[in-house]
Amino acid sequence: MTDIDPESAETYVAENQPYERDTRYIESRITRDGADGYPIEPGRYRLVVSYACPWANRSIIVRRLLGLENVISMGVCGPTHDRRSWTFDLDPGGVDPVLGIPRLQDAYFKRVPGYEKGITVPAIVDVPTGAVVTNDFPQITIDFELEWTEFHRPGAPDLYPEALRAEIDEVNAVVYRDVNNGVYRCGFAGSQEAYDAAYDQLFARLDWLTERLRGRRYLVGDTITEADVRLFTTLARFDAVYHGHFKCNRQKLSEMPVLWAYARDLFQTPGFGDSTNFDHIKRHYYEVHRDLNPLGIVPKGPDLSNWAEPHGRESLGGKPFGDGTPPAPLG
Amino acid sequence: MTDIDPESAETYVAENQPYERDTRYIESRITRDGADGYPIEPGRYRLVVSYACPWANRSIIVRRLLGLENVISMGVCGPTHDRRSWTFDLDPGGVDPVLGIPRLQDAYFKRVPGYEKGITVPAIVDVPTGAVVTNDFPQITIDFELEWTEFHRPGAPDLYPEALRAEIDEVNAVVYRDVNNGVYRCGFAGSQEAYDAAYDQLFARLDWLTERLRGRRYLVGDTITEADVRLFTTLARFDAVYHGHFKCNRQKLSEMPVLWAYARDLFQTPGFGDSTNFDHIKRHYYEVHRDLNPLGIVPKGPDLSNWAEPHGRESLGGKPFGDGTPPAPLG
Repeated sequence: MTDIDPESAETYVAENQPYERDTRYIESRITRDGADGYPIEPGRYRLVVSYACPWANRSIIVRRLLGLENVISMGVCGPTHDRRSWTFDLDPGGVDPVLGIPRLQDAYFKRVPGYEKGITVPAIVDVPTGAVVTNDFPQITIDFELEWTEFHRPGAPDLYPEALRAEIDEVNAVVYRDVNNGVYRCGFAGSQEAYDAAYDQLFARLDWLTERLRGRRYLVGDTITEADVRLFTTLARFDAVYHGHFKCNRQKLSEMPVLWAYARDLFQTPGFGDSTNFDHIKRHYYEVHRDLNPLGIVPKGPDLSNWAEPHGRESLGGKPFGDGTPPAPLG
Repeated sequence: MTDIDPESAETYVAENQPYERDTRYIESRITRDGADGYPIEPGRYRLVVSYACPWANRSIIVRRLLGLENVISMGVCGPTHDRRSWTFDLDPGGVDPVLGIPRLQDAYFKRVPGYEKGITVPAIVDVPTGAVVTNDFPQITIDFELEWTEFHRPGAPDLYPEALRAEIDEVNAVVYRDVNNGVYRCGFAGSQEAYDAAYDQLFARLDWLTERLRGRRYLVGDTITEADVRLFTTLARFDAVYHGHFKCNRQKLSEMPVLWAYARDLFQTPGFGDSTNFDHIKRHYYEVHRDLNPLGIVPKGPDLSNWAEPHGRESLGGKPFGDGTPPAPLG
């Protein structure tokens, strides 16, 4: 439990309504040509994340797979946040050591005074001005992959190969709608009907993914791509949070053998499991969503040691990093 | 979902407190000697239950195993109730056809005007006066077993054999504390500390039960006894409700192989599975406990068809009904 005051806690569910994600983001891009005023420049930008958040988790994984740690620094917010903002409560003095701010919203306000949309992670902050450049998470990882190539580590994988982009985009679109955002549409449904519909859509898509992944190691092509990263961060939260807290409970992930082996395979690949923090994940959802879990009690279970069990997917072939290499172990 | 008004809903959790069950019951007994004024008499009493409630479920099972259906009639309340009372909303006109009352509290008030303790099931009502005789659930099944023997069906099992009573009582005491009531102490814990302690106690006891049941088919002796009935009604609710709603989530029952096979064995025994109503169970907990589940949304999962899977426990020996016979299939 935490000291979040339930009275002042954010609400997530609109009664009698299906859940609709607010997808109005700050969409400036950091590009080679600097067209939006933010050119590629080592050391200039700071990626702000929480390990709790599946959208931020994507950017943590991709930054690490590509070896961008030394050119884009990373600030880490604590697992919980209050009504308005993620905070740097894990840092000494509760202040981000690079940005010098206690609350992520300070960087949003630097960009747009009085900013009224969601203070979300991931966000990339322009360190010289202290202003958020972008929180447009689907674009952030793509730009890491396509715009920052000059600074990729030797052996970095191609996570968005040109020849497969159409297929990756297609898979990503349905996985986003039915799975990544689908679990939220279950959990934040404001009516039984909205929940029932989201649940059916989620598990139908998971069944579809099971069939797709039964005989192939990765979602698209025979190497890890952006599509796997996006599916992984939802699967990593499934048994820890979505199964109980969001009522996504037809089965646990660990009861869906193909998806469970696929998820373990990725988890055990450098860059995935070492970017996953189950403690932050559990604390975030259960402590923050007081309109789903009024007392903020965090379940002790489930036992997550099973993520380390052998997955047996090597026999399907595929090369996780293509002609590249895994990232070095974390320091 | 139901039309329970969250504003007027009962609260179950006392903040910062561990859960304490109110065990002040109306303790009159129906006995052969009629010492409390309620002698054994066919047709005189009505057992009022809800299929949702584990304590009531015990009495449904025992009444059926013993073949008391024709001497003690049964009224069935709907799965949900309001702040003060279970109701006969399943009956035509919303009135119990024998007692002629819409709310169980009417029978409590007949016994004690303005009765202020919990309006609980099971309750046995004296039909001529319309007043509750007892809601002391642990005594109700024992009295079915020991006082109503004259009216037991031919072939009725001895659920509380004299030679095993001390051992049955001993097992029942720890199973009640750690499991039957233990799941409520997890779910209704008013603090993280109280929850953590209840969770540890629950799963330690389930591990103890696993060891006890690994090599023996039933909890005490080699036939079904009162001890099995009492453990069963909690296990039957485990994956459907306690795992998610009460955060008893180290594993699902279906992930604890010995207990899961034991529970399926009982479920597939006449008198158990046919006394279990998963729909009522799920609707009750999720719709009624609005302080745990504010919107009252009922999960679609889990898939409970697995209760019908083979259990393989016959090889352990034991005779479910001793020298007796199973009850006849339900009409």
